Amino acid sequence: MSTSDNQTASLILIGAGPGDPELITVKGLKALQKAEVVLYDALASPELLAFTPANCKKVFVGKRKGKKAFSQEEINQLIVFYATRYKCVVRLKGGDPNIFGRGHEEIEYAIKRGISNITVIPGISSSIAAPTAAGIPITKRGVNESFWVITGTLSSGELSNDMKLAAQSSATLIVLMGMSHLAEIIQLIQTHRSMLEPMAVIQHATTEHEKMVRGNAATLLTKVIQEEISSPAVIVIGKVVDESYLFDQINVQHEFQHTTIKQNKK
Amino acid sequence: MSTSDNQTASLILIGAGPGDPELITVKGLKALQKAEVVLYDALASPELLAFTPANCKKVFVGKRKGKKAFSQEEINQLIVFYATRYKCVVRLKGGDPNIFGRGHEEIEYAIKRGISNITVIPGISSSIAAPTAAGIPITKRGVNESFWVITGTLSSGELSNDMKLAAQSSATLIVLMGMSHLAEIIQLIQTHRSMLEPMAVIQHATTEHEKMVRGNAATLLTKVIQEEISSPAVIVIGKVVDESYLFDQINVQHEFQHTTIKQNKK
Repeated sequence: MSTSDNQTASLILIGAGPGDPELITVKGLKALQKAEVVLYDALASPELLAFTPANCKKVFVGKRKGKKAFSQEEINQLIVFYATRYKCVVRLKGGDPNIFGRGHEEIEYAIKRGISNITVIPGISSSIAAPTAAGIPITKRGVNESFWVITGTLSSGELSNDMKLAAQSSATLIVLMGMSHLAEIIQLIQTHRSMLEPMAVIQHATTEHEKMVRGNAATLLTKVIQEEISSPAVIVIGKVVDESYLFDQINVQHEFQHTTIKQNKK
Repeated sequence: MSTSDNQTASLILIGAGPGDPELITVKGLKALQKAEVVLYDALASPELLAFTPANCKKVFVGKRKGKKAFSQEEINQLIVFYATRYKCVVRLKGGDPNIFGRGHEEIEYAIKRGISNITVIPGISSSIAAPTAAGIPITKRGVNESFWVITGTLSSGELSNDMKLAAQSSATLIVLMGMSHLAEIIQLIQTHRSMLEPMAVIQHATTEHEKMVRGNAATLLTKVIQEEISSPAVIVIGKVVDESYLFDQINVQHEFQHTTIKQNKK
Protein backbone atom coordinates (compact mmCIF):
# COMPACT_ATOMS: atom_id res chain seq x y z
CA MET A 1 0.00 0.00 0.00
CA SER A 2 1.79 3.13 -1.14
CA THR A 3 1.70 6.52 0.55
CA SER A 4 0.20 8.09 -2.54
CA ASP A 5 -2.74 5.68 -2.27
CA ASN A 6 -3.31 6.78 1.27
CA GLN A 7 -3.17 10.45 0.38
CA THR A 8 -6.20 10.18 -1.87
CA ALA A 9 -8.14 8.29 0.80
CA SER A 10 -10.94 10.05 2.59
CA LEU A 11 -12.34 9.43 6.06
CA ILE A 12 -15.33 11.12 7.69
CA LEU A 13 -15.93 10.65 11.42
CA ILE A 14 -19.57 11.38 12.30
CA GLY A 15 -21.40 11.71 15.60
CA ALA A 16 -24.81 10.03 15.20
CA GLY A 17 -26.39 11.87 18.12
CA PRO A 18 -28.17 10.61 21.25
CA GLY A 19 -30.83 8.20 19.91
CA ASP A 20 -33.51 9.99 17.95
CA PRO A 21 -32.27 9.54 14.34
CA GLU A 22 -33.40 13.08 13.45
CA LEU A 23 -30.96 14.48 15.98
CA ILE A 24 -28.05 13.81 13.61
CA THR A 25 -26.77 17.00 11.96
CA VAL A 26 -27.67 17.93 8.39
CA LYS A 27 -23.96 17.67 7.54
CA GLY A 28 -23.75 14.21 9.08
CA LEU A 29 -26.78 13.00 7.15
CA LYS A 30 -25.36 14.35 3.86
CA ALA A 31 -22.10 12.49 4.44
CA LEU A 32 -24.01 9.25 5.15
CA GLN A 33 -25.91 9.70 1.91
CA LYS A 34 -22.71 9.53 -0.15
CA ALA A 35 -20.88 6.88 1.90
CA GLU A 36 -19.34 3.92 0.08
CA VAL A 37 -18.49 2.21 3.37
CA VAL A 38 -19.87 2.80 6.88
CA LEU A 39 -18.18 1.33 9.94
CA TYR A 40 -20.73 1.58 12.75
CA ASP A 41 -21.18 0.80 16.43
CA ALA A 42 -24.24 -0.57 18.24
CA LEU A 43 -26.16 2.68 17.72
CA ALA A 44 -29.16 4.02 19.61
CA SER A 45 -30.42 4.99 16.13
CA PRO A 46 -29.77 2.11 13.68
CA GLU A 47 -32.41 3.68 11.37
CA LEU A 48 -29.64 6.04 10.20
CA LEU A 49 -28.06 3.24 8.16
CA ALA A 50 -31.08 3.37 5.85
CA PHE A 51 -29.86 6.74 4.55
CA THR A 52 -26.73 5.23 3.01
CA PRO A 53 -26.74 4.40 -0.74
CA ALA A 54 -28.03 0.94 -1.69
CA ASN A 55 -24.57 -0.39 -2.55
CA CYS A 56 -22.89 1.00 0.57
CA LYS A 57 -20.94 -1.59 2.59
CA LYS A 58 -22.15 -1.58 6.21
CA VAL A 59 -19.57 -2.97 8.60
CA PHE A 60 -20.67 -3.54 12.21
CA VAL A 61 -17.75 -3.02 14.61
CA GLY A 62 -19.60 -2.51 17.92
CA LYS A 63 -20.63 -4.66 20.86
CA ARG A 64 -23.59 -7.05 20.82
CA LYS A 65 -24.85 -8.55 24.10
CA GLY A 66 -21.75 -7.19 25.81
CA LYS A 67 -19.46 -8.98 23.35
CA LYS A 68 -17.11 -7.00 21.11
CA ALA A 69 -17.16 -7.86 17.40
CA PHE A 70 -13.59 -6.51 17.07
CA SER A 71 -10.87 -5.17 19.35
CA GLN A 72 -10.05 -1.44 19.13
CA GLU A 73 -6.84 -2.32 17.27
CA GLU A 74 -8.83 -4.35 14.74
CA ILE A 75 -11.32 -1.48 14.29
CA ASN A 76 -8.42 0.91 13.64
CA GLN A 77 -7.03 -1.50 11.04
CA LEU A 78 -10.42 -1.93 9.35
CA ILE A 79 -10.84 1.85 9.08
CA VAL A 80 -7.48 2.16 7.34
CA PHE A 81 -8.19 -0.90 5.17
CA TYR A 82 -11.38 0.67 3.78
CA ALA A 83 -10.13 4.28 3.73
CA THR A 84 -7.28 3.28 1.42
CA ARG A 85 -9.57 1.40 -0.98
CA TYR A 86 -12.68 3.61 -1.18
CA LYS A 87 -13.17 7.33 -1.73
CA CYS A 88 -15.77 7.97 0.96
CA VAL A 89 -15.49 6.00 4.19
CA VAL A 90 -17.67 6.99 7.13
CA ARG A 91 -17.00 6.05 10.75
CA LEU A 92 -20.35 6.47 12.54
CA LYS A 93 -20.33 6.64 16.34
CA GLY A 94 -23.13 7.35 18.85
CA GLY A 95 -23.36 10.79 20.49
CA ASP A 96 -20.32 12.98 19.78
CA PRO A 97 -17.19 11.12 18.61
CA ASN A 98 -14.91 13.17 20.85
CA ILE A 99 -16.83 12.66 24.12
CA PHE A 100 -15.80 9.32 25.61
CA GLY A 101 -15.95 8.00 22.06
CA ARG A 102 -12.35 7.09 21.17
CA GLY A 103 -12.85 9.05 17.96
CA HIS A 104 -9.50 10.77 18.27
CA GLU A 105 -7.72 7.45 18.84
CA GLU A 106 -9.07 6.17 15.54
CA ILE A 107 -8.11 9.35 13.67
CA GLU A 108 -4.65 9.23 15.20
CA TYR A 109 -4.15 5.69 13.96
CA ALA A 110 -5.36 6.62 10.46
CA ILE A 111 -3.19 9.75 10.22
CA LYS A 112 -0.11 7.82 11.27
CA ARG A 113 -0.78 5.47 8.35
CA GLY A 114 -0.98 8.33 5.86
CA ILE A 115 -4.72 9.07 5.65
CA SER A 116 -4.70 12.86 5.36
CA ASN A 117 -8.15 13.80 4.10
CA ILE A 118 -10.12 13.59 7.32
CA THR A 119 -13.30 15.40 8.39
CA VAL A 120 -14.81 15.32 11.85
CA ILE A 121 -18.53 16.12 12.13
CA PRO A 122 -19.66 16.62 15.73
CA GLY A 123 -22.86 15.10 17.09
CA ILE A 124 -25.18 15.82 20.00
CA SER A 125 -23.90 13.96 23.04
CA SER A 126 -26.47 12.15 25.19
CA SER A 127 -24.92 14.05 28.08
CA ILE A 128 -26.51 17.21 26.65
CA ALA A 129 -29.64 15.79 25.01
CA ALA A 130 -30.83 13.62 27.90
CA PRO A 131 -31.44 16.45 30.40
CA THR A 132 -32.74 18.77 27.66
CA ALA A 133 -35.33 16.27 26.41
CA ALA A 134 -36.42 15.61 30.01
CA GLY A 135 -37.09 19.30 30.71
CA ILE A 136 -33.97 19.84 32.85
CA PRO A 137 -31.97 22.93 31.84
CA ILE A 138 -28.24 22.20 32.00
CA THR A 139 -27.54 25.72 33.18
CA LYS A 140 -29.97 28.33 34.44
CA ARG A 141 -29.23 31.94 35.33
CA GLY A 142 -29.24 32.38 39.10
CA VAL A 143 -29.10 28.62 39.69
CA ASN A 144 -25.68 27.52 38.39
CA GLU A 145 -22.75 28.68 36.29
CA SER A 146 -21.28 25.49 34.94
CA PHE A 147 -21.69 21.78 34.21
CA TRP A 148 -19.28 18.90 34.55
CA VAL A 149 -19.59 15.80 32.37
CA ILE A 150 -17.94 12.70 33.80
CA THR A 151 -17.58 9.06 32.88
CA GLY A 152 -18.72 7.15 35.94
CA THR A 153 -16.76 4.02 35.15
CA LEU A 154 -13.12 3.88 34.12
CA SER A 155 -11.82 1.14 31.81
CA SER A 156 -10.57 -0.56 35.01
CA GLY A 157 -14.22 -0.77 36.13
CA GLU A 158 -13.59 1.56 39.07
CA LEU A 159 -15.38 4.81 39.88
CA SER A 160 -13.68 7.83 38.29
CA ASN A 161 -11.50 9.95 40.59
CA ASP A 162 -13.00 13.08 39.07
CA MET A 163 -16.36 11.93 40.45
CA LYS A 164 -15.07 12.49 43.98
CA LEU A 165 -13.87 16.02 43.13
CA ALA A 166 -17.05 16.85 41.24
CA ALA A 167 -19.23 15.97 44.23
CA GLN A 168 -17.45 18.76 46.10
CA SER A 169 -18.19 21.38 43.43
CA SER A 170 -21.43 23.27 42.81
CA ALA A 171 -21.58 22.41 39.08
CA THR A 172 -24.44 20.51 37.49
CA LEU A 173 -23.01 16.99 37.22
CA ILE A 174 -23.84 14.79 34.26
CA VAL A 175 -22.57 11.25 34.65
CA LEU A 176 -22.37 8.85 31.72
CA MET A 177 -21.77 5.13 32.23
CA GLY A 178 -22.32 5.55 35.96
CA MET A 179 -25.25 3.22 36.74
CA SER A 180 -23.06 0.38 38.03
CA HIS A 181 -21.64 2.83 40.59
CA LEU A 182 -24.92 4.61 41.41
CA ALA A 183 -24.94 3.76 45.14
CA GLU A 184 -21.35 4.98 45.51
CA ILE A 185 -22.11 8.20 43.59
CA ILE A 186 -25.14 8.90 45.80
CA GLN A 187 -22.96 8.33 48.88
CA LEU A 188 -20.49 10.97 47.63
CA ILE A 189 -23.30 13.45 47.00
CA GLN A 190 -24.79 12.83 50.47
CA THR A 191 -21.36 13.46 52.02
CA HIS A 192 -20.26 16.50 50.01
CA ARG A 193 -23.56 18.17 49.05
CA SER A 194 -26.66 17.13 50.99
CA MET A 195 -29.31 14.45 51.39
CA LEU A 196 -31.66 16.83 49.61
CA GLU A 197 -29.47 17.42 46.53
CA PRO A 198 -31.78 16.95 43.50
CA MET A 199 -30.91 14.02 41.22
CA ALA A 200 -32.41 12.39 38.14
CA VAL A 201 -31.72 9.31 36.03
CA ILE A 202 -32.78 9.25 32.38
CA GLN A 203 -32.77 6.03 30.38
CA HIS A 204 -33.06 5.74 26.57
CA ALA A 205 -33.14 9.54 26.23
CA THR A 206 -34.83 11.02 23.11
CA THR A 207 -36.33 7.67 22.06
CA GLU A 208 -39.84 6.28 22.48
CA HIS A 209 -38.50 4.17 25.36
CA GLU A 210 -37.37 7.24 27.34
CA LYS A 211 -37.89 6.85 31.08
CA MET A 212 -36.94 9.24 33.90
CA VAL A 213 -36.98 9.16 37.68
CA ARG A 214 -36.31 12.21 39.81
CA GLY A 215 -35.70 12.59 43.50
CA ASN A 216 -32.82 13.57 45.73
CA ALA A 217 -29.74 11.94 47.20
CA ALA A 218 -31.91 10.33 49.90
CA THR A 219 -34.65 8.95 47.65
CA LEU A 220 -33.17 8.29 44.20
CA LEU A 221 -31.81 4.78 44.68
CA THR A 222 -35.16 3.38 45.89
CA LYS A 223 -36.97 5.03 43.00
CA VAL A 224 -34.49 3.68 40.43
CA ILE A 225 -35.03 0.15 41.77
CA GLN A 226 -38.82 0.54 41.88
CA GLU A 227 -38.99 1.87 38.33
CA GLU A 228 -36.47 -0.71 37.08
CA ILE A 229 -34.21 1.86 35.40
CA SER A 230 -30.99 0.32 34.12
CA SER A 231 -28.03 1.03 31.82
CA PRO A 232 -27.52 2.83 29.54
CA ALA A 233 -28.71 5.86 31.45
CA VAL A 234 -27.54 9.38 32.21
CA ILE A 235 -27.38 10.61 35.83
CA VAL A 236 -28.01 14.34 36.40
CA ILE A 237 -27.16 15.94 39.74
CA GLY A 238 -27.84 19.52 40.85
CA LYS A 239 -30.48 22.14 41.57
CA VAL A 240 -31.41 22.42 37.88
CA VAL A 241 -33.15 19.03 38.19
CA ASP A 242 -35.87 20.75 40.27
CA GLU A 243 -36.51 23.19 37.40
CA SER A 244 -38.12 20.32 35.49
CA TYR A 245 -40.97 20.10 38.07
CA LEU A 246 -42.28 23.27 36.47
CA PHE A 247 -43.96 21.02 33.95
CA ASP A 248 -45.67 19.03 36.72
CA GLN A 249 -46.92 22.10 38.56
CA ILE A 250 -49.12 23.12 35.68
CA ASN A 251 -50.12 19.53 34.90
CA VAL A 252 -48.62 19.45 31.43
CA GLN A 253 -45.54 17.41 32.26
CA HIS A 254 -46.70 14.30 30.48
CA GLU A 255 -48.08 16.23 27.59
CA PHE A 256 -44.80 18.11 27.32
CA GLN A 257 -42.70 14.97 27.53
CA HIS A 258 -45.05 13.11 25.27
CA THR A 259 -44.84 15.87 22.69
CA THR A 260 -41.09 15.89 22.90
CA ILE A 261 -40.74 12.16 22.66
CA LYS A 262 -43.37 11.72 19.97
CA GLN A 263 -41.73 14.35 17.81
CA ASN A 264 -38.40 12.72 18.46
CA LYS A 265 -39.54 9.65 16.57
CA LYS A 266 -39.29 9.62 12.82
CA MET B 1 -56.80 35.87 25.46
CA SER B 2 -58.51 32.75 26.79
CA THR B 3 -56.82 29.68 28.22
CA SER B 4 -58.28 27.54 25.47
CA ASP B 5 -56.55 29.75 22.89
CA ASN B 6 -53.26 29.17 24.61
CA GLN B 7 -53.78 25.42 24.76
CA THR B 8 -53.82 25.15 20.97
CA ALA B 9 -50.65 27.23 20.69
CA SER B 10 -47.41 25.54 19.74
CA LEU B 11 -43.87 26.58 20.52
CA ILE B 12 -40.65 24.92 19.32
CA LEU B 13 -37.36 25.91 20.90
CA ILE B 14 -34.45 25.04 18.58
CA GLY B 15 -30.68 25.07 19.06
CA ALA B 16 -29.13 26.41 15.83
CA GLY B 17 -25.71 24.91 16.51
CA PRO B 18 -22.25 26.48 16.68
CA GLY B 19 -21.95 28.46 13.43
CA ASP B 20 -21.81 26.19 10.41
CA PRO B 21 -25.46 26.18 9.25
CA GLU B 22 -25.23 22.46 8.37
CA LEU B 23 -24.52 21.65 12.00
CA ILE B 24 -28.19 22.18 12.88
CA THR B 25 -30.04 18.88 13.45
CA VAL B 26 -32.31 17.35 10.82
CA LYS B 27 -35.21 17.76 13.27
CA GLY B 28 -34.36 21.44 13.82
CA LEU B 29 -34.22 22.09 10.08
CA LYS B 30 -37.59 20.37 9.53
CA ALA B 31 -39.19 22.55 12.21
CA LEU B 32 -37.74 25.69 10.59
CA GLN B 33 -39.20 24.61 7.25
CA LYS B 34 -42.74 24.72 8.64
CA ALA B 35 -42.39 27.81 10.87
CA GLU B 36 -44.98 30.56 10.62
CA VAL B 37 -42.96 32.80 12.93
CA VAL B 38 -39.28 32.65 13.92
CA LEU B 39 -37.95 34.70 16.83
CA TYR B 40 -34.17 34.68 16.43
CA ASP B 41 -31.01 35.98 18.06
CA ALA B 42 -27.87 37.37 16.42
CA LEU B 43 -26.88 33.94 15.07
CA ALA B 44 -23.50 32.67 13.94
CA SER B 45 -25.49 31.09 11.08
CA PRO B 46 -28.06 33.60 9.75
CA GLU B 47 -28.23 31.49 6.55
CA LEU B 48 -30.62 29.21 8.46
CA LEU B 49 -33.40 31.77 8.13
CA ALA B 50 -33.47 31.07 4.40
CA PHE B 51 -34.97 27.63 5.14
CA THR B 52 -38.18 29.12 6.54
CA PRO B 53 -41.25 29.36 4.26
CA ALA B 54 -41.51 32.53 2.16
CA ASN B 55 -44.35 33.99 4.24
CA CYS B 56 -42.73 33.22 7.61
CA LYS B 57 -42.45 36.23 9.94
CA LYS B 58 -38.84 36.70 11.04
CA VAL B 59 -38.53 38.62 14.28
CA PHE B 60 -35.04 39.65 15.39
CA VAL B 61 -34.78 39.74 19.18
CA GLY B 62 -30.99 39.60 19.67
CA LYS B 63 -28.20 42.08 20.23
CA ARG B 64 -26.68 44.22 17.48
CA LYS B 65 -23.42 46.10 18.10
CA GLY B 66 -23.76 45.24 21.80
CA LYS B 67 -27.24 46.81 21.97
CA LYS B 68 -30.26 44.70 22.84
CA ALA B 69 -33.26 44.98 20.53
CA PHE B 70 -35.54 43.86 23.42
CA SER B 71 -35.19 43.11 27.13
CA GLN B 72 -35.55 39.46 28.21
CA GLU B 73 -39.00 40.29 29.60
CA GLU B 74 -40.03 41.74 26.22
CA ILE B 75 -38.69 38.67 24.41
CA ASN B 76 -40.74 36.44 26.73
CA GLN B 77 -43.85 38.52 26.00
CA LEU B 78 -43.23 38.42 22.23
CA ILE B 79 -42.91 34.62 22.31
CA VAL B 80 -46.28 34.32 24.07
CA PHE B 81 -47.82 36.94 21.77
CA TYR B 82 -46.95 34.95 18.66
CA ALA B 83 -47.45 31.47 20.17
CA THR B 84 -51.07 32.33 20.99
CA ARG B 85 -51.77 33.64 17.49
CA TYR B 86 -49.93 31.18 15.21
CA LYS B 87 -49.82 27.39 15.06
CA CYS B 88 -46.06 26.98 14.62
CA VAL B 89 -43.78 29.43 16.39
CA VAL B 90 -40.05 28.74 16.47
CA ARG B 91 -37.62 30.24 18.94
CA LEU B 92 -34.17 29.87 17.35
CA LYS B 93 -31.11 30.26 19.58
CA GLY B 94 -27.39 29.74 18.88
CA GLY B 95 -25.68 26.58 20.15
CA ASP B 96 -27.87 24.55 22.52
CA PRO B 97 -30.79 26.45 24.08
CA ASN B 98 -30.18 24.94 27.53
CA ILE B 99 -26.47 25.79 27.77
CA PHE B 100 -26.13 29.38 28.95
CA GLY B 101 -28.98 30.16 26.59
CA ARG B 102 -31.88 31.19 28.84
CA GLY B 103 -34.04 28.73 26.89
CA HIS B 104 -35.61 27.35 30.04
CA GLU B 105 -36.48 30.85 31.28
CA GLU B 106 -38.43 31.49 28.10
CA ILE B 107 -40.26 28.15 28.29
CA GLU B 108 -41.06 28.77 31.94
CA TYR B 109 -42.64 32.11 31.09
CA ALA B 110 -44.66 30.58 28.25
CA ILE B 111 -45.89 27.61 30.32
CA LYS B 112 -47.01 29.92 33.11
CA ARG B 113 -49.15 31.72 30.53
CA GLY B 114 -50.80 28.52 29.38
CA ILE B 115 -48.73 27.47 26.36
CA SER B 116 -48.67 23.70 26.79
CA ASN B 117 -47.58 22.31 23.43
CA ILE B 118 -43.84 22.83 23.66
CA THR B 119 -40.98 20.97 22.00
CA VAL B 120 -37.30 21.46 22.75
CA ILE B 121 -34.82 20.43 20.05
CA PRO B 122 -31.23 20.39 21.28
CA GLY B 123 -28.36 21.86 19.26
CA ILE B 124 -24.61 21.40 19.17
CA SER B 125 -23.06 23.79 21.66
CA SER B 126 -19.97 25.70 20.55
CA SER B 127 -18.40 24.38 23.76
CA ILE B 128 -18.37 20.93 22.13
CA ALA B 129 -17.97 21.85 18.45
CA ALA B 130 -15.10 24.33 18.82
CA PRO B 131 -12.53 21.88 20.21
CA THR B 132 -13.77 19.07 17.93
CA ALA B 133 -13.43 21.15 14.76
CA ALA B 134 -9.95 22.27 15.85
CA GLY B 135 -8.71 18.69 16.27
CA ILE B 136 -8.79 18.71 20.09
CA PRO B 137 -10.54 15.66 21.58
CA ILE B 138 -12.67 16.69 24.57
CA THR B 139 -11.86 13.46 26.34
CA LYS B 140 -9.21 10.91 25.51
CA ARG B 141 -8.67 7.55 27.15
CA GLY B 142 -5.59 7.66 29.39
CA VAL B 143 -5.48 11.49 29.27
CA ASN B 144 -8.63 12.61 31.11
CA GLU B 145 -11.95 11.36 32.44
CA SER B 146 -14.16 14.43 32.35
CA PHE B 147 -14.77 17.93 31.05
CA TRP B 148 -16.14 21.01 32.74
CA VAL B 149 -17.96 23.72 30.77
CA ILE B 150 -18.03 27.12 32.45
CA THR B 151 -19.26 30.59 31.66
CA GLY B 152 -16.28 32.86 32.22
CA THR B 153 -18.34 35.97 32.86
CA LEU B 154 -21.33 36.23 35.18
CA SER B 155 -24.17 38.67 34.48
CA SER B 156 -22.47 40.93 37.06
CA GLY B 157 -19.43 41.05 34.73
CA GLU B 158 -17.26 39.24 37.28
CA LEU B 159 -15.28 36.03 36.80
CA SER B 160 -17.32 32.94 37.71
CA ASN B 161 -16.58 31.36 41.12
CA ASP B 162 -16.67 27.93 39.51
CA MET B 163 -13.67 29.02 37.43
CA LYS B 164 -11.56 29.09 40.59
CA LEU B 165 -12.67 25.59 41.60
CA ALA B 166 -12.25 24.24 38.08
CA ALA B 167 -8.64 25.38 37.90
CA GLN B 168 -7.97 23.04 40.85
CA SER B 169 -9.46 20.00 39.10
CA SER B 170 -7.91 17.81 36.43
CA ALA B 171 -10.88 18.07 34.04
CA THR B 172 -10.62 19.48 30.53
CA LEU B 173 -11.96 23.01 31.00
CA ILE B 174 -14.01 24.67 28.28
CA VAL B 175 -14.73 28.33 28.99
CA LEU B 176 -17.40 30.27 27.10
CA MET B 177 -17.63 34.07 27.33
CA GLY B 178 -14.28 34.17 29.09
CA MET B 179 -12.12 36.37 26.83
CA SER B 180 -12.59 39.52 28.90
CA HIS B 181 -11.18 37.60 31.89
CA LEU B 182 -8.45 35.71 29.99
CA ALA B 183 -5.52 37.13 31.99
CA GLU B 184 -7.23 36.25 35.27
CA ILE B 185 -8.08 32.73 34.04
CA ILE B 186 -4.46 32.15 32.98
CA GLN B 187 -3.31 33.34 36.41
CA LEU B 188 -5.56 30.74 38.09
CA ILE B 189 -4.21 27.99 35.84
CA GLN B 190 -0.60 29.01 36.54
CA THR B 191 -1.33 28.89 40.29
CA HIS B 192 -3.35 25.66 40.47
CA ARG B 193 -2.04 23.62 37.55
CA SER B 194 1.26 24.71 36.00
CA MET B 195 2.94 27.22 33.68
CA LEU B 196 3.08 24.42 31.13
CA GLU B 197 -0.64 23.52 31.21
CA PRO B 198 -1.74 23.35 27.54
CA MET B 199 -4.31 25.97 26.49
CA ALA B 200 -6.03 26.99 23.26
CA VAL B 201 -8.37 29.76 22.14
CA ILE B 202 -10.69 29.16 19.17
CA GLN B 203 -12.56 32.05 17.54
CA HIS B 204 -15.48 31.72 15.10
CA ALA B 205 -15.40 27.93 15.39
CA THR B 206 -16.79 25.87 12.47
CA THR B 207 -17.01 28.89 10.15
CA GLU B 208 -14.72 30.05 7.35
CA HIS B 209 -13.35 32.68 9.77
CA GLU B 210 -12.20 30.04 12.28
CA LYS B 211 -8.91 30.96 13.96
CA MET B 212 -7.03 29.09 16.69
CA VAL B 213 -3.98 29.75 18.83
CA ARG B 214 -2.41 27.12 21.06
CA GLY B 215 0.21 27.35 23.74
CA ASN B 216 0.39 26.94 27.47
CA ALA B 217 -0.38 29.01 30.56
CA ALA B 218 2.94 30.85 30.11
CA THR B 219 2.65 31.66 26.40
CA LEU B 220 -1.05 31.88 25.51
CA LEU B 221 -1.74 35.53 26.36
CA THR B 222 1.08 36.84 24.17
CA LYS B 223 -0.04 34.63 21.28
CA VAL B 224 -3.68 35.76 21.59
CA ILE B 225 -2.57 39.41 21.40
CA GLN B 226 -0.19 38.74 18.48
CA GLU B 227 -2.86 36.89 16.50
CA GLU B 228 -5.55 39.42 17.42
CA ILE B 229 -8.02 36.80 18.65
CA SER B 230 -11.07 38.38 20.27
CA SER B 231 -14.61 37.54 21.45
CA PRO B 232 -16.60 35.46 20.81
CA ALA B 233 -14.12 32.69 21.40
CA VAL B 234 -13.91 29.41 23.31
CA ILE B 235 -11.01 28.76 25.71
CA VAL B 236 -9.89 25.12 26.09
CA ILE B 237 -7.57 24.11 28.94
CA GLY B 238 -6.00 20.71 29.57
CA LYS B 239 -3.67 18.05 28.26
CA VAL B 240 -6.05 17.12 25.43
CA VAL B 241 -5.03 20.38 23.69
CA ASP B 242 -1.64 18.80 22.96
CA GLU B 243 -3.38 15.92 21.17
CA SER B 244 -4.18 18.34 18.33
CA TYR B 245 -0.47 18.73 17.48
CA LEU B 246 -0.72 15.27 15.97
CA PHE B 247 -1.97 16.97 12.83
CA ASP B 248 1.11 19.24 12.74
CA GLN B 249 3.58 16.40 13.17
CA ILE B 250 2.59 14.80 9.90
CA ASN B 251 2.22 18.14 8.12
CA VAL B 252 -1.45 17.79 7.38
CA GLN B 253 -2.75 20.09 10.07
CA HIS B 254 -3.73 22.80 7.65
CA GLU B 255 -5.11 20.34 5.17
CA PHE B 256 -7.12 18.75 7.96
CA GLN B 257 -8.41 22.04 9.24
CA HIS B 258 -8.98 23.31 5.77
CA THR B 259 -10.98 20.23 4.89
CA THR B 260 -13.02 20.56 8.02
CA ILE B 261 -13.68 24.22 7.57
CA LYS B 262 -14.30 24.03 3.86
CA GLN B 263 -16.80 21.27 4.31
CA ASN B 264 -18.38 23.24 7.12
CA LYS B 265 -19.46 25.91 4.67
CA LYS B 266 -22.62 25.39 2.73
